[in-house]
Parts: sequence; structure tokens; C-alpha cells
Amino acid sequence: MAVKFAKRLDNLEGSAIRELLKLTARPEVISFAGGMPAPELFPVEEMKKVSVAVLEEQGKIALQYTTTEGYKPLREKIAERMNRKLKTNVTADDILITSGSQQGLDFSGKVFLDEGDIVLCESPSYMGALNAFKSYQPKFIEIPTDENGMIMEELEKVLEENDRVKMIYVIPDFQNPSGRTWPMERRQKFMEIINKYEIPVIEDNPYGELRFEGEFLPSLKSLDTKGLVIFLGTFSKIFCPGYRLGWTCAAPEILTKYNICKQGADLQASTISQMEVNKFIEMYDLDAHVENIKACYVKRRDLMLKTMEEEFPDCVKFTHPQGGLFTWVILPENVNASEMAQKCLEKNVAYVPGDSFFPNGGVYNCCRLNYSNMPEDKIVEGIKRMGEVLRAELEK
Amino acid sequence: MAVKFAKRLDNLEGSAIRELLKLTARPEVISFAGGMPAPELFPVEEMKKVSVAVLEEQGKIALQYTTTEGYKPLREKIAERMNRKLKTNVTADDILITSGSQQGLDFSGKVFLDEGDIVLCESPSYMGALNAFKSYQPKFIEIPTDENGMIMEELEKVLEENDRVKMIYVIPDFQNPSGRTWPMERRQKFMEIINKYEIPVIEDNPYGELRFEGEFLPSLKSLDTKGLVIFLGTFSKIFCPGYRLGWTCAAPEILTKYNICKQGADLQASTISQMEVNKFIEMYDLDAHVENIKACYVKRRDLMLKTMEEEFPDCVKFTHPQGGLFTWVILPENVNASEMAQKCLEKNVAYVPGDSFFPNGGVYNCCRLNYSNMPEDKIVEGIKRMGEVLRAELEK
Repeated sequence: MAVKFAKRLDNLEGSAIRELLKLTARPEVISFAGGMPAPELFPVEEMKKVSVAVLEEQGKIALQYTTTEGYKPLREKIAERMNRKLKTNVTADDILITSGSQQGLDFSGKVFLDEGDIVLCESPSYMGALNAFKSYQPKFIEIPTDENGMIMEELEKVLEENDRVKMIYVIPDFQNPSGRTWPMERRQKFMEIINKYEIPVIEDNPYGELRFEGEFLPSLKSLDTKGLVIFLGTFSKIFCPGYRLGWTCAAPEILTKYNICKQGADLQASTISQMEVNKFIEMYDLDAHVENIKACYVKRRDLMLKTMEEEFPDCVKFTHPQGGLFTWVILPENVNASEMAQKCLEKNVAYVPGDSFFPNGGVYNCCRLNYSNMPEDKIVEGIKRMGEVLRAELEK
Repeated sequence: MAVKFAKRLDNLEGSAIRELLKLTARPEVISFAGGMPAPELFPVEEMKKVSVAVLEEQGKIALQYTTTEGYKPLREKIAERMNRKLKTNVTADDILITSGSQQGLDFSGKVFLDEGDIVLCESPSYMGALNAFKSYQPKFIEIPTDENGMIMEELEKVLEENDRVKMIYVIPDFQNPSGRTWPMERRQKFMEIINKYEIPVIEDNPYGELRFEGEFLPSLKSLDTKGLVIFLGTFSKIFCPGYRLGWTCAAPEILTKYNICKQGADLQASTISQMEVNKFIEMYDLDAHVENIKACYVKRRDLMLKTMEEEFPDCVKFTHPQGGLFTWVILPENVNASEMAQKCLEKNVAYVPGDSFFPNGGVYNCCRLNYSNMPEDKIVEGIKRMGEVLRAELEK
């Protein structure tokens, strides 16, 4: 067969995480690899009542097509929630419902990127976003980071030197993979720079509500005076991922382009899923549910950090995330995290090697650990096994 | 604001149908415009039991992430069903679950089309597909059709003369918008031609199971010996569209590309929706449900055709679909279907003017009428009102 694929596929590979997750599906594997929420917190009993109520009250509407922008009562609730939690000032009309925030990432590439355009991102950055953007054949310039996230002087330098920067992708809160959060002054400085260069910003915020400690920091979207920030939100981490519901919040002239993408991509998000999540928010207390999630995750984070301190050699460094799902481990330079991952898998422990979080590659001694998905005894056991592998590696 | 969008957006407009559907949402409008199933046939009571059963038995799995390719028991049922209904010979591994078949259309563009590549399609063809492909900046060559669908001599001529044809998009069964079906000899001739030129074919088959009369005809996929046919299926028309579930069935080396697209686009289809549709098929009889749908639609088709014969002037022609959801009306050349649509809307009747089904434009005297969504009294009343407008147009 001589079928010819599009050139964009030449650089596209399957996600290393998604492939790894297949390996880690075996029940005996202690997995710190995915970004999965704790399933024991899912509101299963509540959703039984919710789904019956939706079908009872509006069954024919729930099973039919709906508008591309999404179910209005849900968009209203999202806008109200963003304004309350993130200090934005938006309405339902500023919201497009997407199939997870991942779809907002894909649309961002589709809306802004021609082949050869430049995307700026934190170094490291979320590989799922980088893979989505790669379909549109951009170049990536990674902006160096420190323990407080993106370094603004470095950002400004890159913007001065490059005129084909089409968008900037950032995760200012509890970043994936590093767990780092930008302090207030960086956010303000960032918006100053952005306003000067007028570059669209994709603010990916799946974890913002999951703050365990430290002061609240406003979203970039709430600091945006020029309509440059495109905010991506999701129900995956504050509710559950199985419904695949997220949203894009942007200025009208930008959101209308995302809406056109949505029409072509899949017409609309699931009608019944939107109505069910909306109904859950009406019948139950989503804020209280988020508090339960935080109470569970902060314990798991504490336990993972404490066990790493006890079990890992001193030369291994890791971040102390104030929220979210991940910590980022920096191994000594001579340790290859991918090779070590194989050895850990042999001991039935999994994590994601860090190199795929660098779009231009070249960093091999880091790894991302997820603490939200495993119960406490497995966190301790898994970190202990990793510690054994690590010590053996260092003795080589 | 000086934000620069990608060039691909220059030619992208919102779907005329989706915009029209907003206008036709008013309850007093008799709409032949959408492609919506009859909501009174949706299995609302059954889905109450199904959703409780899924959450009861596997709640934590249903609300969690799953694999990109989709829920295996559902993929197995789809493969079994395709083999039984469409005479294919496929397995679960040949199936990728998508967000409606619309997502399979978008991925087809992403997988095969570089800017300037040529897509062949029937003239007219489904505008939602054309819009999805337009994101990837191809050129379209429309292959002329007659009452039996695509004319094979014309197809062969175009293939001889053009070497940048990257894919062929067809709807051989009860085509959208024309309602036409390719007879067996065209299917065989088509496969001969395709095998000679080795061009990938997107076989869009949302309506194939909804045959009211005439003999069964095998899908192109079942005649495909070289792995060139990519089959797109959906639950929207045989079950309900609110779940947004469809599938792509293709040879492994092609399907793996679609899988990579799915990862970037939205990671996976809704876990719980997949499990619910799967459970419905286990608990109830989908074949019997399809029979109910057919029994309803054939009556509506008969009534629409009969009323058009009575109410429309003789110079107006229309197709006699053997299945599916649409009939195609050809007005005298001097009647502009878009202008007439405005006048019909004033009388609270809506349809889709035909011009947007021609990717290269230029045809203004056709319209697509849907008969699946309106109850019988409204079909009669709507066609009568259209007849009045038509006669007034012709007297001008």
C-alpha cells in the first residue's frame, strides 16, 4: 500500500504517558506515572441520583444534539465559579465547553499556529500540550524556569529576539510536571511583557483550585486587560475525568475561532454529560467535594515528600508543590531517568521520565511523580522501591 | 489587539447548519433543517436503568480516564455488529472510538492532508465533512453524480488528470444531502479504480442501517482488499447523538495515525458514555431499537414525499431515498434556495439551502429536507407552507 500521510505526522509520536499507562494498568504496579485523580473520591452514589434526575426531567433533550458552545446553565455556572474562585469577570458567553481541556490545547494550535511559527513554553512543560501543538508544526522555544516558575528576564529576551512568536503556553499554578507556582510579582511582570508584545497566552489551569497551603494567587486571566489570555479549565481534577468536560474562556473575537474549530472537530461536547455535571452542581456541593479532594491529596503529598526524604539519597532533589498532583524529581546528572524507569518497572513501580516534558529534548535526569492516584501504603512502598533502585544506580 | 490567527482560519466559516439551528430552536418553527433524530424514540427509560447499572457495578472505572482507543467491550460489540450488518471482517483492534463520526472526519483531514492536496467528493457532499477538511487547506474536486451517486467515469477521469489526490470522501448509503445510494456495480467499479490508484477512501456511513426498502448493499469497507477504506460509524442515528460516540475502523497502519490524533485532540472519548452505550447493548436489543426508528422514519419519508407531490409545482424535483434522513429538492434554475429560505423562515419553516453542500459553490437552486425530526402533522403543514412560498416565487 502506497498511502501517503500528511507531513505533520512525521514529527508526531504517541504520548509516552499514554503508552506507559497501558503497562501500568496491571494491578500489581504501583503507579506514580499518570495524572489520574483518586477514584475512591468520585461521587458515584451522587451521580446515580444525578443521572436519573436528568433523564427523568429532560431525557429527550439530554440525548439529543445541542449547540456547539455548550449547555447554557453549565456555562453560567462555570463563569460564576471562575469569577468567585479566580477573580475573573466573565459571563457564560465567554465560555466554550470542550472535550476536556486537552481539546482546548488542540484548538489553540489550530487557531494560532502556522508551520514554523514559534511557541514559547516553560522548560519543562506539559507533554500533552506540546504533542497537541506539534500537529501544527511549530518550533518551540523553552523559557528557563527556577523554583518560582518561568524566569521573566529570559522571556523578555526571547521576545526581543524573535518576531514569529505566535503564542505562549503556561501553567502558572502547580505546574505539570514541576509542581511549581508563579508568585504574584511574576504574574504581574508577565502581564506587563505580554501587553507590550501583544502575544496570545494559553493559561492552562487544571489544578488551580487544588491549593493545599500558601496564599491564593489570581489567575492570569483575571489580570488580563487586553483580551490576550485564553484560559483553559477542566472538570477532570475537581470532579472526575470520565465525562471529558473542560472549557475555554476567551475574548469574543478569539472564542469565535475556537467555536469554529469545535464545529469541525466534533460538533459539540456530550449533551447528557454537560447536563449531568450541571445537575451535580445544583444538587450537591462542588466546593465541599473539592475540599475532600484537597484533604486527601495533601496527605498523600506529605507522605510522598517525607518518604522521599527518608529513602532517597541526599543528592536527589525534588519540588515541594503547594497544590496539584505532581512533584518533580531531579536526579544526579549521570542518572538516566528512562533507563531507571525500566528497572523500577521490573519492581512494579512506574513514573514518567522527564525528557518528554522538554520539547527540544536534552534533559535526561528528571522524573515526574504523581501522588494523587495511589493510596498511602502504596506511596510508601513505591518510594521505598524507587529508593533501592536509585541507590543501586548511584553505586554503579 | 493585534493577535494573529493561523492562515487556515482565513477560509473557515461557522457551519451554516449550526447557525441555522439556533434560529430554528424556537418551538413554533417547523424545522426540516437539522439532521436530528426523532427524540420521542430515544430510550430514556432504558438509559435510566443503564446508567444506574454502570455506576453500581463499575462506578470508579466509569468516572476515571481510560485508554485512547476506547472501552474494549464496546469496540468488540461494534466489530461484531459491523461484521454482521455490513459484511466486514474486523476485530476490536481495528476500531477507535471517537467523539461522534465528525471527529473521524477531522482526523481524516489531519492524517492525510497537506496544504494544496486534493480531496475528491461527491457533488453535492456533506458540508460538515467539507468544513472539517478545510482546516487542512486542501483543494476540492467535486465528482458529478446522478440518481445513483458518484459517476465512476468522471472519477476515473479526475484521477488520471491529477496526481495530488490524497483522499476520496464518500457517503455511498442514503447520502447526506441527496439521499442517494450507490448500486452494487458502482461500488465494485469504485473499488477497482481505488485499488488501481491506491488512494485512501473515507467511507462515511451514519445511515447505512436505516434502510427502509430495496436490497442490502455491502459497505465499501467489506469490499476493501488493500486496506484503503477508512470506515466512519456513529451511534448518533441508530441510538442517540447526545453521547457523542462514533468510531473509525481502518487498517492498523492507518488507525495508529488516527489514534495519535485522538491523543492530541482530547485523550479519549468519555469513559462513562462508552460504558453506558455498551451496557445498553447488553441489557436491551439495539437491533429492535433500530427497527423502531426505521418504522417511524419510513412513515415520515412517505408523508413528506407524498405531500411534496401534492403541494409542490411539477417543475420541482426531489429524490426518493431508500433510507436515511434526507431528501434533496431541485428547484427550477431561476429560484434561489437561500432567498427562499428567508421567506420560509418568515412562515416558520426551515430547511438548509443546498449551496453549502458544494465545496466550490455555484449551485443555488437546491435544498436539503430532513424528515426524521418532525412529527407527521408538522411535516404536512411545513411542506404546505413551503409549497405556498414556492408558487409565489415561480409567479414572480
